Amino acid sequence: MNPAALAPGARMRAEIAAQPAVFDAVLGRRAEFAGVAAAIGRRRPRFALLAARGSSDHAALYAKYLIEILLRLPAGLASPSTTTLYGVEPDLADVLFLTVSQSGGSPDLVEATQAARRCGALTVAVTNNPESPLASVAELAVGIGAGEELAVAATKTYTASLLTLYLLVDAVRDGTGAAAAGIGDLAEQTLAGSAGPVREAADRYRFVERIVTTGRGYSSATAAEAALKLAETSYLAARAYSGADLLHGPVAAIDAETGVLAVASAGPGGAAMRDVVAAVRERGADVLAVGSAAAEVTTGPRIDVPRTADEVAPVLEVLPLQQLALELALARGGDPDRPRGLNKVTRTR
Amino acid sequence: MNPAALAPGARMRAEIAAQPAVFDAVLGRRAEFAGVAAAIGRRRPRFALLAARGSSDHAALYAKYLIEILLRLPAGLASPSTTTLYGVEPDLADVLFLTVSQSGGSPDLVEATQAARRCGALTVAVTNNPESPLASVAELAVGIGAGEELAVAATKTYTASLLTLYLLVDAVRDGTGAAAAGIGDLAEQTLAGSAGPVREAADRYRFVERIVTTGRGYSSATAAEAALKLAETSYLAARAYSGADLLHGPVAAIDAETGVLAVASAGPGGAAMRDVVAAVRERGADVLAVGSAAAEVTTGPRIDVPRTADEVAPVLEVLPLQQLALELALARGGDPDRPRGLNKVTRTR
Repeated sequence: MNPAALAPGARMRAEIAAQPAVFDAVLGRRAEFAGVAAAIGRRRPRFALLAARGSSDHAALYAKYLIEILLRLPAGLASPSTTTLYGVEPDLADVLFLTVSQSGGSPDLVEATQAARRCGALTVAVTNNPESPLASVAELAVGIGAGEELAVAATKTYTASLLTLYLLVDAVRDGTGAAAAGIGDLAEQTLAGSAGPVREAADRYRFVERIVTTGRGYSSATAAEAALKLAETSYLAARAYSGADLLHGPVAAIDAETGVLAVASAGPGGAAMRDVVAAVRERGADVLAVGSAAAEVTTGPRIDVPRTADEVAPVLEVLPLQQLALELALARGGDPDRPRGLNKVTRTR
Repeated sequence: MNPAALAPGARMRAEIAAQPAVFDAVLGRRAEFAGVAAAIGRRRPRFALLAARGSSDHAALYAKYLIEILLRLPAGLASPSTTTLYGVEPDLADVLFLTVSQSGGSPDLVEATQAARRCGALTVAVTNNPESPLASVAELAVGIGAGEELAVAATKTYTASLLTLYLLVDAVRDGTGAAAAGIGDLAEQTLAGSAGPVREAADRYRFVERIVTTGRGYSSATAAEAALKLAETSYLAARAYSGADLLHGPVAAIDAETGVLAVASAGPGGAAMRDVVAAVRERGADVLAVGSAAAEVTTGPRIDVPRTADEVAPVLEVLPLQQLALELALARGGDPDRPRGLNKVTRTR
């Protein structure tokens, strides 16, 4: 169907609304990840390298925290360019090389995975397309199973990749994915509960020129994804900082003209956001707190999210922020289904 | 002395101008790094984790490329928060845990280093203060030796830490730091040659509201540092993207209102910037190219930098961008020596 025939944002709205059902479907496929999880466990990796681009890079950042905290393995985000541009082939024995890609089509990830495999790494691809080049060059592949993403700005494929990554990592440590039980229902509640506060926020940010998003721990992935969604759909100069980095300098750029989206969920990351919110408030910033610990970091505007274990909080926290990106794009006269300059597969090397 | 008694920006200007002499001093101390480099070599690390905050985080990003490319070791930026917030203590045998900090006083880096050492990592601190808590808790320490930084926004300590990291990493592979020979003179030439183009750029950006900085490979560190300097001193919404990430979505936020600072030096990273510059130009952005390959990526405004091996290019590339941050802050009526909300040591956990 020609997207011009639909109301602006109709596709993105439908994809956002589809997420509770997508989560149920991902949970239902948990058993499929068991083989891959067991294979990872048998190889006893000592380090993890993660590679991704765009929204998937934020899913990879989330996976880095999962791997570090739940598996107690050191993990780092890889630079595909050291292989693809500089031709370096390091010794990757004992390394888990994990890529995340909706399309599975990014040539640089394909090339980096091939190189990592040649160098001895256990390569695992998490993609939404099991037939993709990336899934075929990796030793192991896990499907996100979100169905085709019809919106140009990724929503359900992002959250489904988070949930898949949680279930996969938890299965490596022989977990049953308990923290994600009922996440479909919780997502439904989140979307319903945040509709009102999101409309108010979209109204207040109608003319904002500068947005900073911030979170700590697992929620730094949410802050990064929210900034990207706002930049993609509303062309806003949205900038994400980890709460710790923000206080190290960039806070100087925050003033009464800045909207700060602070992500705070129950757990150590959310608790550490209190100081961050206090610091940006002191500079006069407009603060909107989002998450299950929002009420603990601010007495001002907030969007509450049902409480979960913090390792799955990013799956829910981002939902109102996707809604905000959608509503704000519409309020500002744009069509988030036809953003300028955005393609689904970007061919970088 | 009371900074109010000095002309606005006088301290930052003096620190920028001091860099050629600082580089000579760092080169003169190269022999001091030999012991630490040999100790790193003897331990044969298999993986590197880097931890830092603020400007030093960009020095760590540069070190990540050095370690991956020159030592052929996989490397990742660590999240101190997994230890400091979540209390995780992974197995870090065979891991080189490298911290970079001007002050050596960040409590989270001290705590993360102590934890990494307990977990079996070889801990190395690169700081500008050999008496600092960070230098004392690390097993090995290397001084940057830049002298006290009097400007609030780090300039000479940033570049001196880059040069120190290059010399250290090169010494681990038994190199003699050849790529940095004469870098003091080249820095002098860079500063002198860029004064004019920097003034023109500061003039053109007098009213800019949105700046995006971008680079690839080693130069992604320069792009990140330039964005931070502009945010700190001119309160600009400056955002850094690796050239590859930029094309994956954020390019949608780039339009004729955006100033794009594209860093391109001779080498694979610079060559890969051609497509990035073409893409942002197509969207109407104002592009200023900086680096020894600037003329190869644009026919428009540029700041040329003397050509070096690409592994040391970041030491020079950032100099005109520091000058630009200074001049732009002054042009916009600010005082970069007294930026709002910036402290030298930020106490995050």
